[in-house]
Amino acid sequence: MTGDRPTGPLHLGHYFGTLANRVRLQRAGVEVFVLVADYQVLTDRDVADRLGEHVEGLVADQLAAGIDPSTATIFQHSAVPALNQLMLPFLSLVSVAELGRNPTVKDEIAASRQDAVSGLMFTYPVHQAADILFCKANLVPVGKDQLPHQEITRTVARRFNERYAPVFPVPEALLSAAPLLLGTDGRKMSKSRGNTIALSATADETARLIRRARTDGERRIAYAPETRPEVSNLVLLAALCQDRDPHEVAADIGDGGAAALKRVVTESVNEFLRPIRARRAELAADRAHLRAVLAAGNARANAVADATLAEVRAAMAT
Amino acid sequence: MTGDRPTGPLHLGHYFGTLANRVRLQRAGVEVFVLVADYQVLTDRDVADRLGEHVEGLVADQLAAGIDPSTATIFQHSAVPALNQLMLPFLSLVSVAELGRNPTVKDEIAASRQDAVSGLMFTYPVHQAADILFCKANLVPVGKDQLPHQEITRTVARRFNERYAPVFPVPEALLSAAPLLLGTDGRKMSKSRGNTIALSATADETARLIRRARTDGERRIAYAPETRPEVSNLVLLAALCQDRDPHEVAADIGDGGAAALKRVVTESVNEFLRPIRARRAELAADRAHLRAVLAAGNARANAVADATLAEVRAAMAT
Repeated sequence: MTGDRPTGPLHLGHYFGTLANRVRLQRAGVEVFVLVADYQVLTDRDVADRLGEHVEGLVADQLAAGIDPSTATIFQHSAVPALNQLMLPFLSLVSVAELGRNPTVKDEIAASRQDAVSGLMFTYPVHQAADILFCKANLVPVGKDQLPHQEITRTVARRFNERYAPVFPVPEALLSAAPLLLGTDGRKMSKSRGNTIALSATADETARLIRRARTDGERRIAYAPETRPEVSNLVLLAALCQDRDPHEVAADIGDGGAAALKRVVTESVNEFLRPIRARRAELAADRAHLRAVLAAGNARANAVADATLAEVRAAMAT
Repeated sequence: MTGDRPTGPLHLGHYFGTLANRVRLQRAGVEVFVLVADYQVLTDRDVADRLGEHVEGLVADQLAAGIDPSTATIFQHSAVPALNQLMLPFLSLVSVAELGRNPTVKDEIAASRQDAVSGLMFTYPVHQAADILFCKANLVPVGKDQLPHQEITRTVARRFNERYAPVFPVPEALLSAAPLLLGTDGRKMSKSRGNTIALSATADETARLIRRARTDGERRIAYAPETRPEVSNLVLLAALCQDRDPHEVAADIGDGGAAALKRVVTESVNEFLRPIRARRAELAADRAHLRAVLAAGNARANAVADATLAEVRAAMAT
């Protein structure tokens, strides 16, 4: 079970951070649930304006990356009422003190902006517990920053099982083995900084973005993330696309300097993304298909959520 | 819009505190929504065990008291998914600081028992906002202790209207004019203290309970709540049942002492409850009818909630 907030096109950071993992698990025969977290963005006006478009784009990205809708379930928060209803019993299983320990909330409160923490942000880990537990997920691929949230999910599952009946598996977090990919400017990837390469970007847009990427003055290219972060990040990007060791990729470029590095990165990325882009273009042209995939996923998620909610209510009443 | 937690039979405190008000409003042509708050009690094991029974009993109590299911809507939390989903956008409209100002929560935290405050208790006023606003209620009969919660509902309505679109009326609290009725022992009414007279109690049970009621040694009966709380409470009970001024009722009893007072109270209560009990017995014998009333109310509440949720989502996305 994983998910994304439909705030815009997925990029290479998403791909190597989580999408590739999903596809790998799916190919290993694992049943995959992919959540489109549309409720969590409903309060962001800039996003809400184009929500329908973002949601369809997200489905196209997933399918282009290799998610197979005949075995995986892609579904929307807002289409699965029983999932959202799990929030009520789950809220009763965690204390306010525990919710206050959420690092995001603690940061906001430490900055003496308690008024800036909404009830939705405060209870977000419980909503996430509902996302994960409604389908009895046992494996949740996460980034390190998500571990504290994940711990609330495990607490909810454990307490429910102890207090009522053994309904839920206690899900394990699956930390991605991929090293952290930064944006083309060497900083954290962020759509608003324009430092990300979208799966849907054209080859020309990609070349332009990499041409503007930050490097350093040394001619010899090496993979040394600590001392030469910008160059190493570009090497890592090429290496991930080529599925090779970054040290080898750097050695191949040798004394070619920034120009050679950027040429290799551009070629590697465009080569890697070519089939994904071709599939994505086809998919984006058939919006009826995307909507059908989502409708089928929503129907399946509803059946699963209704069954779990019924189990939960039966367990609580006995 | 009002509601009750299905924790057991309704008693005279409920009747004079809120039920009578509902019936009065209904007769004045107001559209009445009556919520059976089954989600809020699902976490109380003692209650959850007999939830179905409590829910049906609550419907029987309402109908016996005069709620007319052909114009009023009696419905259950758990049967109206769209109502519960309103919690998500509403949670985004209040801050953690505001939720922390809830007196119930403040009391628990002041007693340094922050761990005792569950996420469900903490977010309860937001759930209540969903209960009230889903049907665009404009009038909410409440007790004084409910005023702070009611204020959160008004805040949510106002902020939603300002931020998105004018969807909700800002509901007014309707404070009951009835003076506070205490239990037969002169303390706060509570089922667990055995000091309440259930609408469904028999005439004999009622007589027994009033015989054990606390009084004082003075022969002259008077209505003086400050100085003679126990006696005055019994006088008030008789007065409410007779729909008369408590001073007049007390003057009639005069020097009769506790025995005369208890005789008058017993007669008044039993006389008052006789038609209600007769209707209730008929209703309780026809469980299929009670379930049909609830099913019709749930269907109506779902239609209303679905329409409101659609309006909310449209307003947020434009």
